[in-house]
Amino acid sequence: MRTVKLTIEYDGTIYHGWQVQPGLTTIQGLLQDQLSRILGHRVHVYGSGRTDAGVHAKGQVAHFHTPKSLPPEVICHALNGSLPCDITIRRVEEAPPSFHAQYDAKGKEYHYYLFNQPIRCPFSRNYALLVRTPLDLDPMQEALTHLKGTHDFFSLSVASEDMKNTIRTLRKAELIQKDNFLVIILEGNGFLHKMVRRIVGTLIGVGRHKIPSSIIPEILQNRDKSLGGLSVPPNGLFLMSVKY
Amino acid sequence: MRTVKLTIEYDGTIYHGWQVQPGLTTIQGLLQDQLSRILGHRVHVYGSGRTDAGVHAKGQVAHFHTPKSLPPEVICHALNGSLPCDITIRRVEEAPPSFHAQYDAKGKEYHYYLFNQPIRCPFSRNYALLVRTPLDLDPMQEALTHLKGTHDFFSLSVASEDMKNTIRTLRKAELIQKDNFLVIILEGNGFLHKMVRRIVGTLIGVGRHKIPSSIIPEILQNRDKSLGGLSVPPNGLFLMSVKY
Repeated sequence: MRTVKLTIEYDGTIYHGWQVQPGLTTIQGLLQDQLSRILGHRVHVYGSGRTDAGVHAKGQVAHFHTPKSLPPEVICHALNGSLPCDITIRRVEEAPPSFHAQYDAKGKEYHYYLFNQPIRCPFSRNYALLVRTPLDLDPMQEALTHLKGTHDFFSLSVASEDMKNTIRTLRKAELIQKDNFLVIILEGNGFLHKMVRRIVGTLIGVGRHKIPSSIIPEILQNRDKSLGGLSVPPNGLFLMSVKY
Repeated sequence: MRTVKLTIEYDGTIYHGWQVQPGLTTIQGLLQDQLSRILGHRVHVYGSGRTDAGVHAKGQVAHFHTPKSLPPEVICHALNGSLPCDITIRRVEEAPPSFHAQYDAKGKEYHYYLFNQPIRCPFSRNYALLVRTPLDLDPMQEALTHLKGTHDFFSLSVASEDMKNTIRTLRKAELIQKDNFLVIILEGNGFLHKMVRRIVGTLIGVGRHKIPSSIIPEILQNRDKSLGGLSVPPNGLFLMSVKY
C-alpha cells in the first residue's frame, strides 16, 4: 500500500468547506470522488485539518492510500483535468507509509486579508474583508506582541468548555501592508476552531479603538469568550501552508 | 438638466458585457435600472464604449442626464447600496452640460493579464489568461515596438470591411512583469472591436515562436485578418481608464 501526499490550492468561495458533508459540495468530497474514479477503488482523503465554508487554501496538505502504481505526476494531471478550476493540485508526492497529514503536522500558517478602504472593491470581495473605517495599526501591532507565544487561546476561539487542551503557540503574529491590503500573518503549532477569525476580529476592534491592546493578556487569562472581538467572515482567510 | 459623470469598476465575469441586451444582465442595464429607481425617472446611461462579456473595468466612465438635484455623493451611496457587489461606483461628479462619455474620450488604457505558469491558479482563473508554455519575452517586446504608433489596425481586430477609418494610435504598448503575472499595457486614442484581444493573441504567438515579431508591420499593412493571432478570452482584460 502506497501513501501519497497532496498539496492543494483552492478558492473556497462556493464550497461548504473541506470536510465531506452529505448532500453538500466540499473539497474533501470532490477529491475523494475523483481519486476513486481515477484509481478504480474507494479512496479516503485525510486532510491536515478542516477549513470552514468560504475559507481558501494556497497550501492545504492531505494524504491517501492506494495499492495502484500510477505515478504521482499522472495522478496530478488526471486530478487537475477533472477537478473544477477553483481547485488545483500543486504537487503529488510519494510519502513514507506512516505519513499522516493531520497527526504529523508541526504547524500551520494562515493569512487574513483586510481591505481597509472606504469603498468596496469588486475584485477583492471574495478574498479580503472590507473594513471601511480607518484602522490604527500601532495598537494592532502591540496587540500582536501580546498574542505571540504560548497562551491558552480558549477565549479567542469557539472551542467548547470540555476541550482538554486549548493552549497553543503562535510562532509568528505579524501585520504587514501589501498593495492595498493589510495582511495578518499567524503561524502556530495548532489552531482552535475559529481561532484565527476571532483573533482578527479582536485586532480589528483594537484598530478601531474599541478594544485596548493592553487587555489582550487579560482576555486570554480570564478564559471569557465575551471579551474578544467577534469572528470575522471566511472570505479573507487563507491556509497558506502546513509544516511537517 | 444636469449632466452627471460616473466612474465605475466591475468584475465582468458573470455579465453579458456593458451594453443593454434584452433578457440579459448587463452593466449598463443594471445602472439604468438603479438610477431610474433612485431618481424617479427613466435614465439613459451613456458609456465611454462597450466592454464585451467577461471583460472587467477598473475605470469605465459613463454619463447621464437628470433634472433632479440629488448631490453626487448621495447618488454614489445609493447606487453602491443597490448594485451587486461585483460593481462599484468609484466616483460621481457634476460634469459640464455638454460632456459626453463616448464622444469626448481622448483615449483609453487597457491591461491584459497573462498567468504564464505550467499549473493553473484558482485565484486568477477569472482575472488572467493561463498560458502554460513559457513565453519568450524578448520577441514580444520587439513586437510591441512595431505595434506602438499610428497604424491601420484592421487586420488585428474584428472590424468589418466597410468600416471607414481603422487607423488608430497606440501611445503606450508595454509588457511588464507584476508578481506572478505578465501584463500587456495598451493605451491609445481608440480601439477597434477585439483589437486588444487580437493584439494579445498575436503577442502570445510571438512569445511561443509561432509568429516572428518582424512580420508585424506586414500583418498591419496587408489588412489580412488571417495572419495575426486569434482573439484571447475576455477574462484577462481590464479597461483601466478613459482619458478626457
